[in-house]
Order: sequence, then structure tokens, then C-alpha cells
Amino acid sequence: MSNNLLVGKRGIIFGALNDMSIAWKVAERVVEEGATVTLSNTPIAIRMGTINELAEKINAKIIPADATNLSDLEQVFSQSMEILGGKIDFILHSIGMSPNVRKKKPYDDLDYDLMHTTLDISAISFHKMLQTAKKMNAINDWGSVIALSYIASHRTMYGYNDMADAKAMLESIARNFGYIYGREHNVRINTISQSPTPTTAGSGVKGFDSLMDFSERMSPLGNASADDCANYCVVMFSDLTRKVTMQNLFHDGGFSSMGMSYRALQQYNKSFEGSQTDDGKIIYG
Amino acid sequence: MSNNLLVGKRGIIFGALNDMSIAWKVAERVVEEGATVTLSNTPIAIRMGTINELAEKINAKIIPADATNLSDLEQVFSQSMEILGGKIDFILHSIGMSPNVRKKKPYDDLDYDLMHTTLDISAISFHKMLQTAKKMNAINDWGSVIALSYIASHRTMYGYNDMADAKAMLESIARNFGYIYGREHNVRINTISQSPTPTTAGSGVKGFDSLMDFSERMSPLGNASADDCANYCVVMFSDLTRKVTMQNLFHDGGFSSMGMSYRALQQYNKSFEGSQTDDGKIIYG
Amino acid sequence: MSNNLLVGKRGIIFGALNDMSIAWKVAERVVEEGATVTLSNTPIAIRMGTINELAEKINAKIIPADATNLSDLEQVFSQSMEILGGKIDFILHSIGMSPNVRKKKPYDDLDYDLMHTTLDISAISFHKMLQTAKKMNAINDWGSVIALSYIASHRTMYGYNDMADAKAMLESIARNFGYIYGREHNVRINTISQSPTPTTAGSGVKGFDSLMDFSERMSPLGNASADDCANYCVVMFSDLTRKVTMQNLFHDGGFSSMGMSYRALQQYNKSFEGSQTDDGKIIYG
Amino acid sequence: MSNNLLVGKRGIIFGALNDMSIAWKVAERVVEEGATVTLSNTPIAIRMGTINELAEKINAKIIPADATNLSDLEQVFSQSMEILGGKIDFILHSIGMSPNVRKKKPYDDLDYDLMHTTLDISAISFHKMLQTAKKMNAINDWGSVIALSYIASHRTMYGYNDMADAKAMLESIARNFGYIYGREHNVRINTISQSPTPTTAGSGVKGFDSLMDFSERMSPLGNASADDCANYCVVMFSDLTRKVTMQNLFHDGGFSSMGMSYRALQQYNKSFEGSQTDDGKIIYG
Repeated sequence: MSNNLLVGKRGIIFGALNDMSIAWKVAERVVEEGATVTLSNTPIAIRMGTINELAEKINAKIIPADATNLSDLEQVFSQSMEILGGKIDFILHSIGMSPNVRKKKPYDDLDYDLMHTTLDISAISFHKMLQTAKKMNAINDWGSVIALSYIASHRTMYGYNDMADAKAMLESIARNFGYIYGREHNVRINTISQSPTPTTAGSGVKGFDSLMDFSERMSPLGNASADDCANYCVVMFSDLTRKVTMQNLFHDGGFSSMGMSYRALQQYNKSFEGSQTDDGKIIYG
Repeated sequence: MSNNLLVGKRGIIFGALNDMSIAWKVAERVVEEGATVTLSNTPIAIRMGTINELAEKINAKIIPADATNLSDLEQVFSQSMEILGGKIDFILHSIGMSPNVRKKKPYDDLDYDLMHTTLDISAISFHKMLQTAKKMNAINDWGSVIALSYIASHRTMYGYNDMADAKAMLESIARNFGYIYGREHNVRINTISQSPTPTTAGSGVKGFDSLMDFSERMSPLGNASADDCANYCVVMFSDLTRKVTMQNLFHDGGFSSMGMSYRALQQYNKSFEGSQTDDGKIIYG
Repeated sequence: MSNNLLVGKRGIIFGALNDMSIAWKVAERVVEEGATVTLSNTPIAIRMGTINELAEKINAKIIPADATNLSDLEQVFSQSMEILGGKIDFILHSIGMSPNVRKKKPYDDLDYDLMHTTLDISAISFHKMLQTAKKMNAINDWGSVIALSYIASHRTMYGYNDMADAKAMLESIARNFGYIYGREHNVRINTISQSPTPTTAGSGVKGFDSLMDFSERMSPLGNASADDCANYCVVMFSDLTRKVTMQNLFHDGGFSSMGMSYRALQQYNKSFEGSQTDDGKIIYG
Repeated sequence: MSNNLLVGKRGIIFGALNDMSIAWKVAERVVEEGATVTLSNTPIAIRMGTINELAEKINAKIIPADATNLSDLEQVFSQSMEILGGKIDFILHSIGMSPNVRKKKPYDDLDYDLMHTTLDISAISFHKMLQTAKKMNAINDWGSVIALSYIASHRTMYGYNDMADAKAMLESIARNFGYIYGREHNVRINTISQSPTPTTAGSGVKGFDSLMDFSERMSPLGNASADDCANYCVVMFSDLTRKVTMQNLFHDGGFSSMGMSYRALQQYNKSFEGSQTDDGKIIYG
């Protein structure tokens, strides 16, 4: 079903790998809403994933690019403008990767070269994208740019490692570049802080399953899915949200505003079963 | 222009006074998007304002009610469901008033009976509305409720007085009731923290004009207008934002994420003109 | 052991009930640091608790007062200044009570008269205290005022009920009055957001024990105790923190900055024992 | 005057350049409170500044080190432990520099190699310091570590450039490492978000003077000075604040909780003088 919210708009979607990817769902939905898009990902991700299927399905071109590489980014913008026939109206940055996480380096034994890579891929790429776009004047006035974040930027999540620092920086870039791009071209820049989502990337995080369960029980509306996120991106790309900028928007079924829910605490209490005193009082550790 | 975002949805709009009111603009826009609504305000506001014009224009019934009165609220919900033919899908709470502000009682000389009235009208009315609706089971699953707030709930704004405490409480109610209504009926509850807006209510605040100017120069996209706010309400009432709840959503052209802008500082610097030393150095106070 | 941080300072401690009270510990510590104080609580709390013991121990006068009553508060200030021999340097507001919680009225079935009482006792009393003090010019320049808060003001905690709204308002009052009292007399006003603490008041909250356990496992340094809080109050009353004002200071062993800890998640996982599939995979609900 | 708050404690102070430095003031104050310390800065800063004076005055050794270099950091810790006779109790990280700012590269024309340097010096150095200390087990249980931050990490300040991103990351590192070092050794890690301070580093920021003035007028207690900050560091290093961790502590005379003050708005209004209509109404831009 379409509300024609993005009719005539041109977008670039970075980061779709396979049909579990949030970026994949976003690409499908924005096209449904009338937009035309290009897709971009690294050559290796294009080979390993199934983005070609997506491209075919929504009739979009794929522009291979390393988002940490300025000339690659220039190519993405210049080709996208050519393919789509004009300046860009919206961009999704769904890019993040920590080689420290992959190599199981804990946060107190980081490899700093790898950390630099984490930052470059997961945060600085967003700045590079914006700076390149602005220099090329590639984004239309009142264009909308979104990057995906996670609450670990504000509250430490066990196992999220240096990705937490990268997300904190990503949100900072959204604010700082949002100011500049806003005052000069009314381009708005926000991050969406999404529930833990069972994508290929997300699932790599340590203890992901039980985190998903806890998060689900804490959130009054349950975790937001990739499909939900795609809908939220649609409205943030539309003209109906033109004065929202420099924000980190929690899209998480309420998780971020919860301290403790009844459901999560009930489940937590079950963990003490068998640890009661004779009169039934739970022995807390 | 309509995107049919609210086709078939039923809503209640509290707080439209005249065509400067945010609630007025919201009412017009949601109807444009396919919703049917009822309007509610106090009998005195109905007499003093021009809400009848609005009602005629959008073909909506007005249900007079004091939003601090539980039986009045029951009436609003029962009549609205009858008039609109079913349970309610969305509600706008655009209600706020401080008799301390009106009587020019400064924040360090509050009349506590008046403060109670400020809280009752501007914050507790929101709880009463939600509690009444929940007891009557008057809101559809996945319904959406919005109350309007202002950044003074987080950062002291000279002259905003006890309204700041009321807004802090309003946002707290959105979180706490959002948890309960969410877990039981998936109803989502948020506040929109809007730019200073030249409504009849807003203009009453001390130093409002220069605050508007400062806010405009600080915000990279400028202040959000009542029309902008109406658009944002539309998306927050739509099914595209179903997992956003318990949030305070800044809708302010970026103001909330600004510490100091170039434009505002340039203007500020002009204030020192005539206060330079002979060699042109500004003498800061 | 004393660091003589409060030598010559005069204080008022509101809210000591018995030796589990945070206010009790604060009173002991500030006297240890060289201050002289008066104690205040309601007549009924004085009868039901053991504050007389404290008064004797630290050689302090008790001034019975209802902190929601303006003339009682005037008495507290005038008598305190007389007893202590001069203007007041610091105040602790450790007052909070919800009759809705006591009567087990859930948050979606509040009695609004009781809610008014919750607000009046737990939040507005703080404003009344400050307004009374300021009108009487009872606080020395650079005086320091602290009220105790809890993170439920920001994130919904199951069962905390209308106390959450009261704490949100309390923190707002600290900001708004902090601005006014700061600019005119350099008096600083802050709230300390304390870990759940097993006081007589705290223990009344539903599910308190398991919340304490969860909070303990989430906080890298464990929950902050009443004794810890007393130390923190000492430094906030001292001259070493003169430029800290209008802040909500988390004093919670790190809880407020945690999303999920290893220890809490391990415990949480135990709750699924017996819910595994044959190959040992946990079945999350 | 001393309160003997740090008697017997050993500390390392990074970043003193000259007597305008916050780190300089902190070094003097902690020694006054009974601590012994070592000082560290880069060889070039040692040459260009006057840290030798400080070392002589407080009888402390200087250990030259590049805080981005792991083996230099190891040297600082091993030599400090040897010189001071035991493990370290507290550390001040007062290090920050942006070559993009120095070379007047605006935020939308960053040199990414320079940005990497900004991050490495201003944020990652903090992680390196902590990781090195933890691997060497160089910090005593309940030790306290502070890094200096600035509100630009949360709200965009014109001209602060990529330092804002670095500070956002610095605060994130305090949270994430605070969790790990806390749970294992009860070491607490916080950042102090200080008022703009006229140090050699601070003064380099564009428009610094008028920002200082605006900040002064916005803050009810005025800007916090370097001396004020030294006092605050003392209490944060002391045993009286043992349960405060993973926090960003605003030390700014109230600035962070202000939206608009009377004094700042009055000054702002002066900027419109000469822009009035005939009847005295100000023409806002």
C-alpha cells in the first residue's frame, strides 16, 4: 500500500546486504512510496549478499563503493544524479562494522588500528558522505538524510564494544553537520536509534538473542522490526517532517524510556527459582 | 494535498481556539488526510474563540468540556465514539494555561493554588484524559496520542514560569502512561516539543518576540510553524510510526541541539556596538 | 573521620525518620564535617520514627513542620536561624510520599486528590521551601540546596506510579528555581538521583527487592548506599562544588549509563533454564 | 587551605601547559589536598609552556609522553608508580587538539587525516590511557579518572568543529570503559563538562570572547573558572564520591540547564537598538 509520500523524490540507499537488512526494507518501501533510488554497498558485500535481487525487484542500479573512500563517494553521487535525473532528496546511511568485534577483541584490549577502521566505516563515512554531497551540491534543498544508530551510544550495552563509541560519534556528526547543511540548504540530518534488529550485522553481537528477549519484554510495544523502521524512514524522508533535524530519534517500542517493566522483572525473577528459603522468600544474590 | 494517511481514522482534537492555534491547523490537516474528528475546548474558549468556524469548515462536532473534569472527559469520549461511529484512533492534547503567568506572579512568588490550577490544566488533564479513555476502552489498539510540549521542560526559559514544571510533568505522564497503555493496548503516547509559536497562548509569555527571534536565528531551519507542526502530528498519528512511543520529539528546526549558531552570535555581537575601545576591540560586559 | 568540609556552616535536614533514612545519614555526616543543623519532619513522622535519638546524638534541635505548609516552613527557617545563629548554608530535601502507592491505586486508576497530595508533598514542598527561604532571605550567598530524586523521573520503573511524575517535577523545580536563586544570591540547587535504597520509604515500592538485585547487577559499582549518599551530599554542600547548579546528579554506581551488563544478562538467562531445546538452545519467549 | 581530601593518594596529571591551564590548577590543588603527583605532557608542550615551574612549585616529576603512543603511556604509568611509590589513585586527562581548527578547515571541508589526529589526541588517547593502565593493573581499586569535556558534545557550538565529535566520543569512552573498569576494579570514570575557560587551548576557538560573554550571561552563577574546576576535580578524586561513575558532570554555573536567561536576552535585545519603528516597537530580523 502506498501513500505516495515520496513521489518524484530521488534517494540513495547505502548498506543493503540481504533481505534481513534494514536498508533492504527501506529501499523497497521508498520505491513503493514513489521514489526512485540507487543502491550502494562495497564490492565484497555485493558479492556476498543478494543485493542484485533487490536491484532487480525495485528496478534500481547498484553503485559499488567503499563509503570511506572520497572518490568512491563522488562516484555514487555523480552517477546517482545522472541515473535518477537530478539532485538527491534523501539518503540512508546503514553502515557499520567493527573489526574488533569480529576478531573478538574485548573493549579493554582493543587494537587501535582496528578501532580506527570501526570509526572510519561506522561514523566518519557519514561525514565523508555529507561533505562530499555538500561540495558537489548534490542534495536538494529540504533534503533528508538518516543514519541508523543504537542506544549503546548513550548507555553501555555489554558486548557492543567500540561500536558504541562509533555510534556516539555518528550521532554527533548528525548534529554538527545538520547545523551547517541546515542553515545553508535546509537539508535535515537525523539518526534513528533502532531496536536491536536480527540482521546479519546485528546478530554478530555477543549475547544478541537474550538481549533481544530482554529488550522485547522491556518495550511496551515490543522491539521495532526492520519493516517498522522502513516505515519510519519513509516519514522522515517525506515533506511532512521538514523541521525535524539534528535529532536522535528513538524507534524502539518505548525501550529508551523504560527503566524496568513488569514483564522483564517477572522473567528476571524466574532466574531465582530454586533459590528460595523454606518460607518461599527469594534469596537475591 | 493529501496522502490519505489517516483514511478511516477517528480523532479528537483538544484545544483549538482560533486560526492561530496549533490545534486548529492539526484539525484541518488530519481531516485533509482522511480522518473524521470531534473538537473539544472549554465553554469559555468556545465563546471567546472562533472554533465554530473551524467546525463548520471541516464538518466536525464541538463537544464543550473542561479537560480537568472527569465526567466532562467521559462525555467527550462517549459522544465522540457515537458521532464518529467507533473507537478513537488518535488524540491531540493542546492544552495549557498558567494563571500565575496571567497574574504576573513571578516564579519566586507563586500562588500555590494557582500553581495547582496550572498543573491541573496543563499536565494532569493529560493523565485524566488517558485514564478516562483507558477505563472506557475508548482508544483502538495502536492508537496514537500526542501532547504539545516546549523545551522549557528541560532548560529554563526566562519568564516561562510554572508552565515549565507543568511541561516536565506532562512529558513524564507521556512516558508513564505510555508504558501502561502500550503494553496493554499498543497505544502509543508521545509529546512534541514545538518551537515557540505565535499562538494566542504563546504570545502571552514575557519577552516572546525577542525569544522568537533568538530561537529563529539559533535554529538552522528556523522555527517550526503551526503548519509544520500539523504535518508532524499527521505522521505521528499515522500507521507509519507505530513503534515510536514514550518519546519527547523535538520539532524545532534544530534548536534543541544547538549551543550557539553563527547567526545568533553575530546578532548578539551587534549589541556591543558603541562599546568598543579605540582600537575596535569589543568590551564585553 | 572528618575533612572539615562544612566547618561553620549551618544546615537544615528535612526528612529523617529512622536510622535507615538517607536524611539521617546525611545529618550525621554533615555534623561530623563541622556543620550545625536543625532537623525537621512532620509531627507524625517524629512520633513514629526515632528522630529524637538522632537529635540527641548530634545535639540538634527538631522543628516539627509540615513541609507543604508555608507558615510551618517559615517557622523552620526563622527558628533554625535563631538556633544556629545566622543564615542557612545548606538544605536537604528528603521528602516524598504517594498516597496512591500506599492505597495500591495503580497508575491507570489514580485518585486525583491523592495525586495532588503526592505532588504537594514530594515536589511542590520543594518549591515552597525555596520560595519561603528566598522571601525571608534565609540562605547565605553560595548556599547549597539538594533534593533527592530517582531515575524513574526519566525512565519508567514498574510500580513507581505517580512518584515518577512528582520526581520529574522536583527536578524541574530545581532547574527553574536554581536559575532565579542563582542569579540573585548565587544559591545553587541540585537533585541527587540516588540508587534504590532500602529505606522505610523505598521498601514500600512494589517489587523492590528484585529491583534492588537487578540494579545491583546492572551497576558496575553496585548500588549506592545511604552512607555513600551522605558523603556525596557533604561535597555538594561544601565550597568545592560552587559552580554546580540546576543539575540532576546521578549517584548510582553507574546504573543510569548502563543499557545491559554481563552480570544482569547472565542472571536473566538463568530464568530460561529448563526452557531449552534438546540441543541446548534457549527458547526465548 | 586544605581539607586533606587526598592525603596519601597518588595521581597523574596530563595536559598542564602554563598557569592558565586547568590541569595546572588541578595539580596545585590536589597537592594542597595531600596528594603526590607526576605531570605529563608532550615534549613540545613542555618546551613551549612553563610546566617546569609547576613541577618545581609542587615538587613533582615531569614524564614527557605522547598520550597517543602506547609505549609512552606505559612509561608514564611505570615511572609514576615508581616515583610515587605505589599504584595510582587518580588521573586527569586534560588533552585536546584539533589540527583542523588550527588550519582553519571548516567542518564541511575537513581533512580526514587531520580529523583522525583530532580523534586520536582528544578522545582515543583517553581509551589508550585506560587500557594501558588496566593491563598494567596500575590503578588502585576505587581509583578515580576524569577527562575534561565541553557541552559542544551535546549541542552544536559554532566554530567548535571536529572537536565536538571528539568530545562526544570522549564521553562515550568514559561510559564504556567505566563499565568495565568499574565491575572489575571499582575504578570510576567520569567527564567534567566545563564552562568555556580562557586557557591557551580554549582561546583558539573562533568567536571565543563573545561566546564567553554569552555563556557568562546565560549562567546564573557565571562561568566556572579553572580554579573552580580544580576544586571540583578534588572532590571527584576523593573518597566521598565513590559511587559516581560513567557520568558527564556539567560544571558550568548552570549553563547546561538554561534555555534563555533574562540577562542574555536583555543584552541580545540591545542588538536591535536603532531598528525600532516610530512607536518604539523593535523590528526583529
